Amino acid sequence: MIFPIFFTFSLLLSSSLASVKDFCIANYKSPEGPAGYSCKKPAKVTVDDFVYSGLGIPGNTTNIFKSAVTPAFAAQFPGVNGLGISFARLDLAVGGVMPLHTHPRGSEILLVAQGTIIAGFISSANNTVYRKTLKKGDIMAIPQGLLHFQVNGDKTPALAFVSFSSPSPGLQILDLALFQNDLPTELIAQTTVLDAAQIKKLKGVLGGTN
Amino acid sequence: MIFPIFFTFSLLLSSSLASVKDFCIANYKSPEGPAGYSCKKPAKVTVDDFVYSGLGIPGNTTNIFKSAVTPAFAAQFPGVNGLGISFARLDLAVGGVMPLHTHPRGSEILLVAQGTIIAGFISSANNTVYRKTLKKGDIMAIPQGLLHFQVNGDKTPALAFVSFSSPSPGLQILDLALFQNDLPTELIAQTTVLDAAQIKKLKGVLGGTN
Amino acid sequence: MIFPIFFTFSLLLSSSLASVKDFCIANYKSPEGPAGYSCKKPAKVTVDDFVYSGLGIPGNTTNIFKSAVTPAFAAQFPGVNGLGISFARLDLAVGGVMPLHTHPRGSEILLVAQGTIIAGFISSANNTVYRKTLKKGDIMAIPQGLLHFQVNGDKTPALAFVSFSSPSPGLQILDLALFQNDLPTELIAQTTVLDAAQIKKLKGVLGGTN
Amino acid sequence: MIFPIFFTFSLLLSSSLASVKDFCIANYKSPEGPAGYSCKKPAKVTVDDFVYSGLGIPGNTTNIFKSAVTPAFAAQFPGVNGLGISFARLDLAVGGVMPLHTHPRGSEILLVAQGTIIAGFISSANNTVYRKTLKKGDIMAIPQGLLHFQVNGDKTPALAFVSFSSPSPGLQILDLALFQNDLPTELIAQTTVLDAAQIKKLKGVLGGTN
Amino acid sequence: MIFPIFFTFSLLLSSSLASVKDFCIANYKSPEGPAGYSCKKPAKVTVDDFVYSGLGIPGNTTNIFKSAVTPAFAAQFPGVNGLGISFARLDLAVGGVMPLHTHPRGSEILLVAQGTIIAGFISSANNTVYRKTLKKGDIMAIPQGLLHFQVNGDKTPALAFVSFSSPSPGLQILDLALFQNDLPTELIAQTTVLDAAQIKKLKGVLGGTN
Amino acid sequence: MIFPIFFTFSLLLSSSLASVKDFCIANYKSPEGPAGYSCKKPAKVTVDDFVYSGLGIPGNTTNIFKSAVTPAFAAQFPGVNGLGISFARLDLAVGGVMPLHTHPRGSEILLVAQGTIIAGFISSANNTVYRKTLKKGDIMAIPQGLLHFQVNGDKTPALAFVSFSSPSPGLQILDLALFQNDLPTELIAQTTVLDAAQIKKLKGVLGGTN
Repeated sequence: MIFPIFFTFSLLLSSSLASVKDFCIANYKSPEGPAGYSCKKPAKVTVDDFVYSGLGIPGNTTNIFKSAVTPAFAAQFPGVNGLGISFARLDLAVGGVMPLHTHPRGSEILLVAQGTIIAGFISSANNTVYRKTLKKGDIMAIPQGLLHFQVNGDKTPALAFVSFSSPSPGLQILDLALFQNDLPTELIAQTTVLDAAQIKKLKGVLGGTN
Repeated sequence: MIFPIFFTFSLLLSSSLASVKDFCIANYKSPEGPAGYSCKKPAKVTVDDFVYSGLGIPGNTTNIFKSAVTPAFAAQFPGVNGLGISFARLDLAVGGVMPLHTHPRGSEILLVAQGTIIAGFISSANNTVYRKTLKKGDIMAIPQGLLHFQVNGDKTPALAFVSFSSPSPGLQILDLALFQNDLPTELIAQTTVLDAAQIKKLKGVLGGTN
Repeated sequence: MIFPIFFTFSLLLSSSLASVKDFCIANYKSPEGPAGYSCKKPAKVTVDDFVYSGLGIPGNTTNIFKSAVTPAFAAQFPGVNGLGISFARLDLAVGGVMPLHTHPRGSEILLVAQGTIIAGFISSANNTVYRKTLKKGDIMAIPQGLLHFQVNGDKTPALAFVSFSSPSPGLQILDLALFQNDLPTELIAQTTVLDAAQIKKLKGVLGGTN
Repeated sequence: MIFPIFFTFSLLLSSSLASVKDFCIANYKSPEGPAGYSCKKPAKVTVDDFVYSGLGIPGNTTNIFKSAVTPAFAAQFPGVNGLGISFARLDLAVGGVMPLHTHPRGSEILLVAQGTIIAGFISSANNTVYRKTLKKGDIMAIPQGLLHFQVNGDKTPALAFVSFSSPSPGLQILDLALFQNDLPTELIAQTTVLDAAQIKKLKGVLGGTN
Repeated sequence: MIFPIFFTFSLLLSSSLASVKDFCIANYKSPEGPAGYSCKKPAKVTVDDFVYSGLGIPGNTTNIFKSAVTPAFAAQFPGVNGLGISFARLDLAVGGVMPLHTHPRGSEILLVAQGTIIAGFISSANNTVYRKTLKKGDIMAIPQGLLHFQVNGDKTPALAFVSFSSPSPGLQILDLALFQNDLPTELIAQTTVLDAAQIKKLKGVLGGTN
Repeated sequence: MIFPIFFTFSLLLSSSLASVKDFCIANYKSPEGPAGYSCKKPAKVTVDDFVYSGLGIPGNTTNIFKSAVTPAFAAQFPGVNGLGISFARLDLAVGGVMPLHTHPRGSEILLVAQGTIIAGFISSANNTVYRKTLKKGDIMAIPQGLLHFQVNGDKTPALAFVSFSSPSPGLQILDLALFQNDLPTELIAQTTVLDAAQIKKLKGVLGGTN
């Protein structure tokens, strides 16, 4: 009795394959386009393509900033390719700092999961600073592309999770952009009004040349 | 006299090839990306890539719902790839029903071409139902992603055409999503508050397991 | 027994108002923005805001082109405001013509509902014409912004429905753009290489001045 | 010495007001449009417009599902208006369930902050279920508009945070959409193949009429 | 002293490769998709991919319109692929005319760099002509998809640069679309109300057939 | 004879008002939304709303950077509101510098109109600098949100015009963001690793406090 019903039911969709693109798991071996990576063939997709466990592991904060960023962007987490969203983990040891940086292609929401964090961003309109000490459970919105920072001013380590409005928001850390490449000292001085001595010192610290 | 004019005219475009991407006919054999299928080479494109005749054929309504959906999404109709639009045909026999479903990636306009159709959708704001009996020539807008249905409550067959704001709007039919896969009965019961007996019955009808 | 369950259930949403913008019915009296009309207050929205019956009425084809376009764009049909889609009806009497035109902000799918229609568009890449005689039930995709036309070359009236990938796709009819305004004859001649006599004749027919 | 430099520096921007729209804090009293709420005047914006503390408070899980969703969408959190992103908190008591639901206008990333959560979604392509037990620190991507659920199958309460690719992703809970409104029992039965008795029972539990 | 600091600093990013897609230089040999060309591998990208010198060369205006367009669209300038912007150069000799045309996929800003230019566009709303004589340094905005023209009415050559809101805005020149292909004279006459003699004459001038 | 034809022709559009939104001239007095300013009423729009002459005037370069930026963003040029494009003028005196800056919401094309300009941007992927000396007529693409600069290294003044892929791309000048507000010196030091003395010096130059 039941079987015939099921049999005819499969006719509801007149086309044999009503395939639709619910997702586009990144295939890192195929060509990439302006909208992201090529898609893995649906038949090979498993639930593990949608799950990322890398953010469960504390980042190594043994560095000059006592902080660590662990991204789960499309380049690390194939499941977000094409979905308009991504995630990251931010560890701040005591005294830790996430230095001034921007995300060129995405807005951000910061969630404090542990400790307290001083977070702020600088508007482009008139350089106004919007800054606040956030406690556990607070979220803060950081508009796309604006310079912002996070600082752990407390006596215990802090942990935050960060979400972005793009699968590939990008991360441009100001210090590294200025001092960890071969941009000549003179050109940096011209385009920042920083003193040459200051620039050379930081190039030394961060590995820049020229 | 005329010839020289034509000859020099071809110089208007200084670049020998001002090629632009007017369209991107789906090439089903190349890798797919988040924005859709790769494009067929323009030189191989013909008018037939832009025309689809499959919607001229009535769908087979000999099934439990007495209805049939015939999609002309990018997966079936290569001409709409990348264009932000697609189409489908809906046949409802007497007593026919297009069961509750959503289109995860597109808004819809329903056009009644024959007969009358009771159509409705459920808003997410406060579960309000917007429902009306549509007559031939009426159109109804169904916002993206919301549950909706169509029923032929009349004594003659009904025919509708449906347009979407995406070349791949998707189609998730509630009954099939719940009862035509291996989602365990207990988990369905937990996440829907339906009785286990009801779930098992419908799994039987629709071919689900577990 | 049941009442307490329901009572506590309403707590599932911790926020008293999980309002979301499922739709944005056009309020023609409020200011319009780049994304469309302001939204009618949700409490005043009824199902009739989502339904449009104007396309059920044949357009008046008693005119020079023996054709009529009846749009259901956001300006006429408030329900599509913000939804990324709109619709129109096209009546072509015997010998009727929808003259060359573009939709500046949307791609189109044309559905032949009655009769046969010769439809075509001109690509911008190298002026290739993609043209075909469509029969009832055929659909044709017309990429955004390209010049296209529809002609009834048959012996019976034709009817088509047209869908667009925008709530406000626009409609620029070439003849009216050229000959139904005050663009000086000399300037038209310069920018089209048409003869002045031809221009003046058509300005006369279509009501243009200068 | 310094003063003159500063004085002339303000001339870098030739326009006196290079105002740009870094953000658009929701002004709930002005008309809303398809892209979101009108913007609060920049001069009145403070850092508190960008910070939301409501997610730091556990939701009340004393209800039939032993769960609570606390949204920070644009309707609750004015700072995300126009930014393409939003957030929410999900509390699941022991045995708690977030019933089957969709977000009509956004993809989601789920972060397990405490406990373990069985999460899954159902693809529209062929009703495949992608399901996994997530542990603390895991994230899972849920593509836009697809049915999904979360269940706490463990012996301790679970807590998750959820991010969306839209400031107003919407939330349509299947049970409430079906059983907490005035959709007639017969119509539900027709469009879901559920038994009328089952429908009536759940309408009773959830407060539906008809 | 410095070395250890630098060494540990590299740990700031926990993921070894925080690669992000800042750009997608067009790789003309890989498949193209709806969002543009595939991306060249980042390691092979040089500054020359972002620079285009072709617009520094005057176009050849020895043609019927005494004008020349030199595009720097994604098809010519690989650096703009995926960036939402492109450029072009327009040379108008004395008496030169850029005939009526549209850009199907982009709005335009015209900058007069030399001489004066009469520029205008025709709105679709009611065929209103917005027309003005622009002098050196003036810019004019032309909304997407609308018919527009530029004329040098002065006694010296004019030069303009044009920017578009798309890497592939397209360029459909009315005269070429009508008269430089195999669209039959009778069909053009029907869909434009131009006289057959006029059409044949211009087909002769511009190389059309049929 | 002609009159009747024209008379009936007006029936081609069955709807009396086929109004479409070709443009949305900014009305600075109405509320602004996430997509831009409210629209001026079409009846009040004139060609002057689409033309901006402010870029024809050299900016005042008598300042510390010997440079001047003159924006024609939606805030200054109402005609680009909603069109996805804007423009600016950049004057660089001999030795002039446009200091490091970003546009948070748009990609850029730089056109050298006079003189030579050293232009460069820093990628976020690995801090690679893409830098080149551009001559008159060269264009350079700068991807969205990345730090970039322009320097006149030549012996004559330089002039450039800049186009953006947004009507409100924003402009965040690094020096002003760091040193022209009340961000405390200590916090800047923490989040940039610059020396406090350096910071205080530049705050003095640029007018910052704290």
